Amino acid sequence: MDEASVLWLTGLSGAGKSTIARHLRACLVGRGAAVAVLDGDEIRRGLSQGLGFSDVDRRENIRRIAEMARLLSTQGIVVIVAAIAPLSRHRGLARNIIGAPYREVYVKASLSDCERRDVKGLYARARRGEVVKFTGVTDTYEPPLNPDLLVDTSTHGVHVAVSSLMALLERCQAKQTVRQLA
Amino acid sequence: MDEASVLWLTGLSGAGKSTIARHLRACLVGRGAAVAVLDGDEIRRGLSQGLGFSDVDRRENIRRIAEMARLLSTQGIVVIVAAIAPLSRHRGLARNIIGAPYREVYVKASLSDCERRDVKGLYARARRGEVVKFTGVTDTYEPPLNPDLLVDTSTHGVHVAVSSLMALLERCQAKQTVRQLA
Repeated sequence: MDEASVLWLTGLSGAGKSTIARHLRACLVGRGAAVAVLDGDEIRRGLSQGLGFSDVDRRENIRRIAEMARLLSTQGIVVIVAAIAPLSRHRGLARNIIGAPYREVYVKASLSDCERRDVKGLYARARRGEVVKFTGVTDTYEPPLNPDLLVDTSTHGVHVAVSSLMALLERCQAKQTVRQLA
Repeated sequence: MDEASVLWLTGLSGAGKSTIARHLRACLVGRGAAVAVLDGDEIRRGLSQGLGFSDVDRRENIRRIAEMARLLSTQGIVVIVAAIAPLSRHRGLARNIIGAPYREVYVKASLSDCERRDVKGLYARARRGEVVKFTGVTDTYEPPLNPDLLVDTSTHGVHVAVSSLMALLERCQAKQTVRQLA
């Protein structure tokens, strides 16, 4: 069984990670692929219930997501992770666990755009001090320095993002085929 | 998106859970289904790394598997769990988390058969006292009282088990269709 790609969508809250993941999933399922979305918010309510936002807990949350992503990838399931993973070393941990199938996708939007969208009302609550340890407001977000793909949702809509991601997946698959033939 | 079934294969170590899961997976993938196997041994090495075999840790292990199974099921992925889940209340926890898609499958084999097979050499180690808290030797296994399916691997081979499981899945799907039409 070939390992399928793991696309890790990192970016600020409100950058559009979950929306892109959902649309990409639909597109891939339409082409007959087996796809799983591991969405940070859902994982926090389920698998990582009880973990907080300390550095240790964030790390453990990312470790669990990465372990699941790896397991599914080895079974040929394309995994789309939508999770902030704010620090470079968090993403390094994910990359170490997942290995070759890991692809880093930076879903970029300016903090002011994310804050203006504020879909879940979290920025307003963070500014009022009701949410402590909120990435981009009180906690650091380190943008990826060398992502496999950057999609800018301040300037482009979800369909452009999905097209770019589909192209990335096709490149990964071509590379894998070359490796198998070599 | 329809929820897909979660087949929870419970039974002693060596009863044949992983083997059946692997064969069933291949059969379903061959029919174009999206399928994930959550195998207890793999989960212990990955997602549940660091958890032991105390009651609290066993419970947390099962909670994590059940949360992942639920998430994947809601995305239309058929989930096959191969995990001992020794006590009735462990399976109750899984059933509570997963909800309607949960199906309990008792992979039954006598302790003496499992011990004779001893594929991983664990029974021998448990008898020598090198493995503490080993289900069936030092720890209790409560057989399911009312499983959705019982497959007896002392008397039947893996292909009979897979056929029975395929029939169970077809019954689940038929029920779901009836619910949708109602």
